[in-house]
Amino acid sequence: MVTALQSTSSVEVDSTLASFEREFGSERRDVSAALEECAANLIPPGWSDLGDAARYAMLGPGKRIRGVLLIAAYRAAGGRGDIAPLAAAVEIVHAYSLVHDDLPCMDDDDLRRGRPTVHRKWDVRTATVAGVAMVPLAVRAALLGAARLDLSSAASGAIVAELMRASGGGGMIGGQLLDLESHAAGFSLTDLERIHRGKTGELIAASVMIGGLAAGARDSQLDALARYGYDIGLAFQIADDVLDVTSTSDRLGKTAGRDAALGKQTYPSLLGVQGALDRASALIDDACESVKTSGLASDRLQQLAKFVILRES
Amino acid sequence: MVTALQSTSSVEVDSTLASFEREFGSERRDVSAALEECAANLIPPGWSDLGDAARYAMLGPGKRIRGVLLIAAYRAAGGRGDIAPLAAAVEIVHAYSLVHDDLPCMDDDDLRRGRPTVHRKWDVRTATVAGVAMVPLAVRAALLGAARLDLSSAASGAIVAELMRASGGGGMIGGQLLDLESHAAGFSLTDLERIHRGKTGELIAASVMIGGLAAGARDSQLDALARYGYDIGLAFQIADDVLDVTSTSDRLGKTAGRDAALGKQTYPSLLGVQGALDRASALIDDACESVKTSGLASDRLQQLAKFVILRES
Repeated sequence: MVTALQSTSSVEVDSTLASFEREFGSERRDVSAALEECAANLIPPGWSDLGDAARYAMLGPGKRIRGVLLIAAYRAAGGRGDIAPLAAAVEIVHAYSLVHDDLPCMDDDDLRRGRPTVHRKWDVRTATVAGVAMVPLAVRAALLGAARLDLSSAASGAIVAELMRASGGGGMIGGQLLDLESHAAGFSLTDLERIHRGKTGELIAASVMIGGLAAGARDSQLDALARYGYDIGLAFQIADDVLDVTSTSDRLGKTAGRDAALGKQTYPSLLGVQGALDRASALIDDACESVKTSGLASDRLQQLAKFVILRES
Repeated sequence: MVTALQSTSSVEVDSTLASFEREFGSERRDVSAALEECAANLIPPGWSDLGDAARYAMLGPGKRIRGVLLIAAYRAAGGRGDIAPLAAAVEIVHAYSLVHDDLPCMDDDDLRRGRPTVHRKWDVRTATVAGVAMVPLAVRAALLGAARLDLSSAASGAIVAELMRASGGGGMIGGQLLDLESHAAGFSLTDLERIHRGKTGELIAASVMIGGLAAGARDSQLDALARYGYDIGLAFQIADDVLDVTSTSDRLGKTAGRDAALGKQTYPSLLGVQGALDRASALIDDACESVKTSGLASDRLQQLAKFVILRES
């Protein structure tokens, strides 16, 4: 099996999904259970197709990396409560973004997480509407999560604001729009990093920041978490670009070779596969360094950072 | 000039837009100024087309009825602070819903508030994304508004939850989807009321509820505001259906005769124009009764209720 970063990382980690499951399976299952609970409590039966589509998108298979990162950041900052509902909130935002990314007016993709995309299984209208409906769902999940932890008004507000900042046009959505223009001539590495900072980095950074905010982390620790989040977010996207070149649709659960087919500029197209992997490796080292020196209990965060680029799908 | 409810209401009110402007111009201007402030503070320059489209949708001409209702409910419940940012939040949600309603996969309309719809001025992709980006903008506006009023954690949480409940699939979005199925055979008045309760009623009810919540209204007063909101929301939609039959595109600032063209069931199609107007009038009477008996200072709310169906566009 070929991993995104097989031999270039200095870190020795078993890179398989089985390894992630062994190390973080408990957190992943907590996030999935919280997602099930959100779907059961927040989607009324009357939604019919819309509800089915939102459930399909929220509860599909997935590693729940953002939710697991949120939990790890929360615990690293000393949190001990039931953080899973907040982890579900970021996963709902992520799931909505995938529904919209796959739309014909965006990437126009048929396959996601090994299953037909929402607009293929239903239609464009249902996918558009179900996607939008998931943003309020995520906010409600976050409010319930904050209430369950009995957080202060300031902390709940900061958490919802962070979730929304990452979900809005400055975050994922802006990144996605820029991404769609990334076949333009004269497209540079700086442009690409700006895209990925928005498209992947913002929500990953928000995930760890929300974990920190919920645990009452100090400002300097929140800064460290933000740096960590942006670094691994970018590394994650580089790994994604590399896997799009080196892996298969079957293994990825989504269409491989899609970037080249769409004529998009990517890390491998700008730096070559090896150059891209070196850049990802350096980012992970930086990310680990940020949290190591922050006074956070950072072992699990470092372990997760390495998984991000050693994954196979 | 023909109004939606010319001679059927027992109430004598000057029905022109000039009258609304005279009575509620100050509130309308406060809401518009708060929207300008949100656009300036929450949309970063880097959004480019996405930002332009969101600004276009947020700042276009409009009566700001939902925002004005929110302010009136706040004051009726004794609130004396700067409530305009919260009013802007509901108007942003409303503006996003219009962008998506007009999409080709929804109502496929070219004209809105007398201007090209967002997907006609830009494209479907930009309209889809700008619409979604406005939901987080609305949440951030609401959080800023709640913070400016120094509301409790419980009140801010309840306000954001109410905004999201109305924006989600159980509210406007669900109503919109049902609406698109409203040319089905055997479609009844009950089905139609369920649609409009979602499509228009939820956000109008949420607007007055948020006003009440921000002012610390008692539960019985919040109930009265909710009933008032649902009643005038439904009356508003009936007026809309009637205007679609009796008015012109020029006066409406959107395409007239659209419902019939789409083969939709509406109040006039099910009850006739006069029957629809009678129903709207009865709803307004109920709405006024609810707030009159609740201990709220309800004069302005009653005045607004009547405007809702006496409008011409």
